[in-house]
Amino acid sequence: MKQALQGSGVRDLAMARPAVARDRSASRRANLSMVLRLLRDEGPRSRARIAEDTGLPKATVSHLIAELLDGGLVREGEAERDRGAVGRPGQAVEVDGGGIHGLGAEVNVDYISLLALNLRGEVTFERRTPLDVRAVGPEAALDAIAQLVTEGTAALRAQGGNVVGVTLATPGAVDMDAGIVKYASNIGWREVAALAGLRERLGPLTPELHLENDAKLGALAEYVLTSADNVRDLVYVTGQTGVGVGIIAGGRLLRGTGAYAGEVGHLRLVPSDQPCACGRRGCWETTIGRDALLRYAAEPGDTVRDPTIDLDRRLAELRDRAHAGDPRTLDALGRIADHLAPGLALLADILNPRLLVLGGHFAYFGEHLIDTVTTQVRDLTMAPDLGGCEIVLSQLGLAGTARGGALLALDTVYQDPTAVMASA
Amino acid sequence: MKQALQGSGVRDLAMARPAVARDRSASRRANLSMVLRLLRDEGPRSRARIAEDTGLPKATVSHLIAELLDGGLVREGEAERDRGAVGRPGQAVEVDGGGIHGLGAEVNVDYISLLALNLRGEVTFERRTPLDVRAVGPEAALDAIAQLVTEGTAALRAQGGNVVGVTLATPGAVDMDAGIVKYASNIGWREVAALAGLRERLGPLTPELHLENDAKLGALAEYVLTSADNVRDLVYVTGQTGVGVGIIAGGRLLRGTGAYAGEVGHLRLVPSDQPCACGRRGCWETTIGRDALLRYAAEPGDTVRDPTIDLDRRLAELRDRAHAGDPRTLDALGRIADHLAPGLALLADILNPRLLVLGGHFAYFGEHLIDTVTTQVRDLTMAPDLGGCEIVLSQLGLAGTARGGALLALDTVYQDPTAVMASA
Repeated sequence: MKQALQGSGVRDLAMARPAVARDRSASRRANLSMVLRLLRDEGPRSRARIAEDTGLPKATVSHLIAELLDGGLVREGEAERDRGAVGRPGQAVEVDGGGIHGLGAEVNVDYISLLALNLRGEVTFERRTPLDVRAVGPEAALDAIAQLVTEGTAALRAQGGNVVGVTLATPGAVDMDAGIVKYASNIGWREVAALAGLRERLGPLTPELHLENDAKLGALAEYVLTSADNVRDLVYVTGQTGVGVGIIAGGRLLRGTGAYAGEVGHLRLVPSDQPCACGRRGCWETTIGRDALLRYAAEPGDTVRDPTIDLDRRLAELRDRAHAGDPRTLDALGRIADHLAPGLALLADILNPRLLVLGGHFAYFGEHLIDTVTTQVRDLTMAPDLGGCEIVLSQLGLAGTARGGALLALDTVYQDPTAVMASA
Repeated sequence: MKQALQGSGVRDLAMARPAVARDRSASRRANLSMVLRLLRDEGPRSRARIAEDTGLPKATVSHLIAELLDGGLVREGEAERDRGAVGRPGQAVEVDGGGIHGLGAEVNVDYISLLALNLRGEVTFERRTPLDVRAVGPEAALDAIAQLVTEGTAALRAQGGNVVGVTLATPGAVDMDAGIVKYASNIGWREVAALAGLRERLGPLTPELHLENDAKLGALAEYVLTSADNVRDLVYVTGQTGVGVGIIAGGRLLRGTGAYAGEVGHLRLVPSDQPCACGRRGCWETTIGRDALLRYAAEPGDTVRDPTIDLDRRLAELRDRAHAGDPRTLDALGRIADHLAPGLALLADILNPRLLVLGGHFAYFGEHLIDTVTTQVRDLTMAPDLGGCEIVLSQLGLAGTARGGALLALDTVYQDPTAVMASA
């Protein structure tokens, strides 16, 4: 986990490199950030090697590491014998920050959730609560999210932790800078000033707040996990009531000019007359989204369709039925596979990712989906052998989005380590 | 033109930033590169401002500029009064290099072409020759391209010019590193070792050779032109016998894991039974590509369908007919618009670019295409108001691809200015 977080993920995603330093304190900040990001992205290493990798003088590096040690952001690790070095092995330094936490809070159609990661990449808080978000409306949903954030923050602070930020994740198109959810049809939000609402509810001790689309955060979380394998191009497909994709291209999150990139749920790809929350009919997500899966798989009275039961339990139940060979469940998964394939093929042709990662409910049905889907997509794409693309299941299940939010919140520490060093 | 080349285009596209300097000569190269790219991307400025922008000491900047002046890569420009400066205005420095040329050589279905740009962004050589590339086969096509490159290089060298590189552009998927065209169905090339073939034909004085897909180079050329407007996300649609797209996302070219990104010509988007060069039927490019346009617009014996006539003249003739209100031509353009729209909508939904640029033959029919297409795409995309995307015509027509190739060839100078300074 920790290794993954250090494996180059958030690197280029959140913000540009620090500007050229204009004064001494800016230069110190930039250097601390450079060293900390090096340790995250390239792994533990000795002071000598840090000097070599950054081009900074050895004395400067020693001073910077001393500051980071003081601030609790790094720790001494194991001895590292530098490549080819003859003398005494150097002491490696690695990212620490076990008491520095980022939070990801997700609002989706049928639940809200919160996940905290510390700087080491360890999950330090996790909770998911069923909620009919569309029915209760934005104000009540923000109440519930604020409550969850308050509980999580209080628990982490009670242990002496420092919560550096919270990312709110929602489906649909968001205006990150303004903190506004522009349009999320499945939860019925339109022009909701989500961050202002959250800030008001959380009061004076509010950590820094961010807002991002669920699919983009899911892609970020997957990218951090897989970056150890040198994957630079990845498409993450959410499996929720709605379906969207998050695109990592060349190691960077693709947002598009209006942050609408990846809004594929409403493409018309499969013949269908099913009404969609957007007001149209036959949108792709009505054929592969959660409602479609549950509708294909079970009658209305079935427990798997009871929204008051935690989603994870219901999906696990469906997985059990598939394992047991239940014909209706298997038929439902076959239909999902058939409807998934044309969209995945399209994404493979246009984006040629190294990985197509299926998240959310898709991630529950590995063996019953992946082979069928892969075969179909292979037939449909133009590039031979899928152009080097592999279709895989998310290892994060329903937690991917909140995890991506926590990573984004933590990235501010990498951009400016001094912000948390004062308080550490 | 010059302004455009300096306007931030190739910046992130070709290669990563220089590695941290490990020795003095590497550090000098990196600094020369940084200064030259600053002048290209941000425009002319004084030495004082260069020092401020790069963080380099003023004395170092003066020394670097002296070297670049010596090498003919920059020149003294007009006096620049620094913002807020009270004293004497500084002398601005700007990119020069009128004698340093990059070449772009394009092989397409019905022509080959060559275009040279100098470092100032001026077109210094341009030629296009009709050729039935599929019929003559790869060897003869490479003969013809080598002949064109030899002529262009000789002409530029006769004026004392320095040709730093040649980019070969072809349709289809290419392996840049190996210099191999993997598969280009419309010209019938499969696993053609194009760069090795070209190198053999050009002999000992061969400039550095590059290989890239036509749509990606077209996107690069468009991006350089539009970057002045702060466009960071752009999709370029080729209008050739085949149709592909080049994607610029967040200011960088999106290639995909196997360089197949943008291979959209074979999507099935429009009901059609037309046979495609790829062996299938009904591919998108068979409904909007050059053959479709000419088939819709004219009978087989018509001059616009005579491949021995230069393509530009034939397309200009069709444009004249459209202007004159010829019903068959207008009907053909209406069909092209109808078939373009679903694909453009798909690209807008997935990538949310700021600009969708229509190149090649599409660029000839502005008023007869753009409004109809825009209206249809607006209806089909999910994001309100096209998500901030604008559909525009390429200003480069058939020259975009070769121009992108010339830019890519020139980028090596920005990466390592010392390579040409020795010989300047």
